[in-house]
Amino acid sequence: MTTDKATGQATPLDRFIAVIPAGGVGTRLWPLSRAAAPKFLHDLTGSGSTLLRATYDRLEPLAGSRVLVVTGAAHKEAVCRQLPEVNDADLVLESEPKDSGAAIGLAAAILHHRDPDTIMGSFAADHVISPDQLFQDAVKEAIHTAATGKIVTIGIMPTHPSTGFGYIRSGENLKVPGAPTAQSVVEFVEKPDEEVARQYVESGEYVWNAGMFVAPVSLMLKHLEANQPELFAGLQEIAAAWDTPSRDEVTARIWPELPKIAIDYAVAEPAAAAGDVAVVPGTFRWDDVGDFASVGRLNSAGEVDEVTVLGAGARVFTENSSGVVVSDTKRVIALIGIEDVVIVDTPDALLVTTMANSQRVKAAVAALKASGDTDVL
Amino acid sequence: MTTDKATGQATPLDRFIAVIPAGGVGTRLWPLSRAAAPKFLHDLTGSGSTLLRATYDRLEPLAGSRVLVVTGAAHKEAVCRQLPEVNDADLVLESEPKDSGAAIGLAAAILHHRDPDTIMGSFAADHVISPDQLFQDAVKEAIHTAATGKIVTIGIMPTHPSTGFGYIRSGENLKVPGAPTAQSVVEFVEKPDEEVARQYVESGEYVWNAGMFVAPVSLMLKHLEANQPELFAGLQEIAAAWDTPSRDEVTARIWPELPKIAIDYAVAEPAAAAGDVAVVPGTFRWDDVGDFASVGRLNSAGEVDEVTVLGAGARVFTENSSGVVVSDTKRVIALIGIEDVVIVDTPDALLVTTMANSQRVKAAVAALKASGDTDVL
Repeated sequence: MTTDKATGQATPLDRFIAVIPAGGVGTRLWPLSRAAAPKFLHDLTGSGSTLLRATYDRLEPLAGSRVLVVTGAAHKEAVCRQLPEVNDADLVLESEPKDSGAAIGLAAAILHHRDPDTIMGSFAADHVISPDQLFQDAVKEAIHTAATGKIVTIGIMPTHPSTGFGYIRSGENLKVPGAPTAQSVVEFVEKPDEEVARQYVESGEYVWNAGMFVAPVSLMLKHLEANQPELFAGLQEIAAAWDTPSRDEVTARIWPELPKIAIDYAVAEPAAAAGDVAVVPGTFRWDDVGDFASVGRLNSAGEVDEVTVLGAGARVFTENSSGVVVSDTKRVIALIGIEDVVIVDTPDALLVTTMANSQRVKAAVAALKASGDTDVL
Repeated sequence: MTTDKATGQATPLDRFIAVIPAGGVGTRLWPLSRAAAPKFLHDLTGSGSTLLRATYDRLEPLAGSRVLVVTGAAHKEAVCRQLPEVNDADLVLESEPKDSGAAIGLAAAILHHRDPDTIMGSFAADHVISPDQLFQDAVKEAIHTAATGKIVTIGIMPTHPSTGFGYIRSGENLKVPGAPTAQSVVEFVEKPDEEVARQYVESGEYVWNAGMFVAPVSLMLKHLEANQPELFAGLQEIAAAWDTPSRDEVTARIWPELPKIAIDYAVAEPAAAAGDVAVVPGTFRWDDVGDFASVGRLNSAGEVDEVTVLGAGARVFTENSSGVVVSDTKRVIALIGIEDVVIVDTPDALLVTTMANSQRVKAAVAALKASGDTDVL
């Protein structure tokens, strides 16, 4: 660990450890993404890397191998195959989903138990970001800002008045050395309607909340303790046992009893109200790959005529057609005279919809679940 | 065999033997119908019977078990499974396709060699007809008319000015006992353009040529000999050997050398010019299942919402969608917000098109062939 010559302390960048919460099924990407093969285990950009692997690689220049991954126990094998660098003690397996408060809170507690000076950064495993350099620049600014005692979100400059994301209203520049763009956060706001979203974007004061943040673990735990004392206590008990032989026993006993709450409500919003949150606006391109229309946009390079094709073994024949085809089989797929179509072909389920309807896939999955066709979910 | 009391001869109905040419891939129904599993081996009406079996059952009240089937050698096993009643000597297997002139001509020659008084009726294995009774009534009229020395086509009353069929122009009523609707044929005409088709339909003088005919085998062979002497000679040689131990040897030697010509040009049109052709207008409903739009129309009873679903094990979920789904797999198929779609899901190939484009499937198959993807054709 390098030290700051003036103070003898570790520099903020050296205190950084990355946390990757790899959760969520990605229901709107069914039938490609599903319980047994969630979104982060897929290559949705045609890059040859899964979203999880790309997330790790993007953080590696900043975190080295200091990465903690939180995922469902069912995905252990797949995650280890994607990230052979991550050792057992840095892989937090949830026996059942407990929402982001418990997942990210446990990461904070484990890291705090190991070293209370740690600055953690939490980055979802299923987002697409480019170029890496601009992302890394933003994270560095966020680390410097976090070192001043802030929870620092990395916001996304809005490209359109989206109603699908929460927004962050920024305030004055914090004049942090090494973080020229860091600003205070006035408030987090929920997903707005389109009219309000347009006002937000026009004002220039708002960025999208992408759920990415960098923070001292001690500050995270301080707010968690204040707002969710029961969750805090449980997580502390697991963290104390984590690097000991009783890890599994303690986790198995406590985890199922933890309250379910999103990290936004457990920490971020109360912290913002207390003036402890800052924002660094990210200037990189960002996509949470929320539906197949998004998959199509991200892969326009792989077009056959006007059809975007994803899938290593895809055999797609098109005539007068446009849209996106995701092929997870070796089947020949022929499209004739059909426009703006979305086709997702997997061994046991086929989805056919349109670009405009791709957000409705989530409702369809709910209907399938209700009808008992759960074998393909 | 019953005999006519006045003449001591067999009545015309007793001289009848049905011939079922079971050929043609049905390219416009790809990927359901294909070289290895042509149209006639599918149940395209949701009746539970293949088109071939339904054709046999429709003829059985007239022909009993006196049925000759002509098909490709590759389909022997599948045809025998569908028609266990047909014995070896009544199953003509083509080692390679030689068009309808050779296929139907050989049937005529074999039947003539067995009994020169036979009246044959030829009915394609892949048409959909209902009700059977009206069809059988028309065939009976055709048999009575054939007995007067005519090749008798069974025409189809046009329901719209189709440009996809040839037409038959009918003349005066022939006043045949037992065949009140039999008329002379003035001429066969090729597929017309839409304007001409409209004139044909409005005139009331034209019916569609569905390729169904009833004729004395002796008259068939007379015209075949006059117009295609080489083909005639080859077929006669095979027919002479057919019910002998040398059948296979003679067939294998001669069949590959036979000229390829449609029965329309080899027999029907020259016979019409000679005044030897009559027509009985069929009043039954008839469909040659030319594309998936037609499959949709024939199966509207099996609708899930506004989607027609075909396939025994189909698991189709639809929301705000319309069209036709043919499922030849056990996969879940989800349609969301897509209209007038045609989806054909088979184990190795998937077609997605629209009702309006369903005629273009043939061109797509040609393109697949050109691209070398012949494993799925």
